[in-house]
Amino acid sequence: MKVKVVSHILEANDRIAAENRKLFKESGIYVINLMSAPGAGKTSLIEKTIQELASKVKMGVIEGDIAGSDDARRIANLHIPVVQINTGGACHLDANMISEVLDALPLKELDLLIIENVGNLVCPAEFKVGEDIKVMLLSIAEGDDKPLKYPLMFEESSALVLNKMDLLPYTNANIEKIRKNSLSLNPKLKIFEVSCRTGEGMGKWVKWLQSLIK
Amino acid sequence: MKVKVVSHILEANDRIAAENRKLFKESGIYVINLMSAPGAGKTSLIEKTIQELASKVKMGVIEGDIAGSDDARRIANLHIPVVQINTGGACHLDANMISEVLDALPLKELDLLIIENVGNLVCPAEFKVGEDIKVMLLSIAEGDDKPLKYPLMFEESSALVLNKMDLLPYTNANIEKIRKNSLSLNPKLKIFEVSCRTGEGMGKWVKWLQSLIK
Repeated sequence: MKVKVVSHILEANDRIAAENRKLFKESGIYVINLMSAPGAGKTSLIEKTIQELASKVKMGVIEGDIAGSDDARRIANLHIPVVQINTGGACHLDANMISEVLDALPLKELDLLIIENVGNLVCPAEFKVGEDIKVMLLSIAEGDDKPLKYPLMFEESSALVLNKMDLLPYTNANIEKIRKNSLSLNPKLKIFEVSCRTGEGMGKWVKWLQSLIK
Repeated sequence: MKVKVVSHILEANDRIAAENRKLFKESGIYVINLMSAPGAGKTSLIEKTIQELASKVKMGVIEGDIAGSDDARRIANLHIPVVQINTGGACHLDANMISEVLDALPLKELDLLIIENVGNLVCPAEFKVGEDIKVMLLSIAEGDDKPLKYPLMFEESSALVLNKMDLLPYTNANIEKIRKNSLSLNPKLKIFEVSCRTGEGMGKWVKWLQSLIK
């Protein structure tokens, strides 16, 4: 019974996600669903990406949070179109939430839309929102045991951005273990090592991102 | 319709949680539901607590993970009764999952049971499992903006353990901001500053824990 309900919700979500995707394609916009645990640095990655790319690529952002609008204010300070969604308790964005805010963005003027999901390493991976690809962040301060404990997000993502590399000397995290276990779940996963704080590694990430956008 | 289903699930969960609670009380066991985002250090806190307390307090542990049994092995290495629950995708423990594994623990011999929830700063706070209190961990590497973005867990918890204090000099996190915003959500919240890596601050935490157990 419980399973049935969940499956209906997922089917309805997939239908709306397909509609969003169609609208994005018609508008010529590439869409990334950015996911991570709380505090891994999603907003910081978006800020750094804007600083590197905004002169070449027209970007927009949708911010998803349970409550608050701090993240949207951070993006708006960089003069990028942004909408904040407050899920009011829900632990992930779904396709309908995205559909409802699209009117607030100048879609036809944008090349790249980054959708920052709610900070959660589990549920966001289950709900398509109409994206071209999913990208996940992992802070190396979270430890090296995450791939095998939260496999779905690693399996669903096209790229894994390992953030806070500047903290590596002060942790016990083993980057090779993260790489090996992530690739065992998803052999095609692109892995980037960055520090949004120091700017380390941003070049490769931004170059890859540019290669995706026509 | 969606809301109705959720409310039925929560009502059924609360009923089973109350049964668990009754069983815990009859067995004279104090139960903590330990929650945090992935990688904040729940298992490390349990390990350190066992090292400090196991000679005085008979402890047992239930480990909740989507997949894997690394955490249970870490606890078993310390010769403490432990059961691993794999939720197989579900992003939180519920009362029924706990009910189903209680036979595997020597409840009448235990004084303290720590239930380590799935790493998730959102959903675990919604589901009682039969605990006396909820305790949450926050890694200071997650930043200082979490209380206002994930308010429910801060509101539901009796104590907040700020972990990885040894990383503070290498982050931008403002401890006073975390304290102020946490207490604005929950004025009775007890706050502990610790580093499970260095052992800093464990004394106060363990002393408080002991004061809860008759």
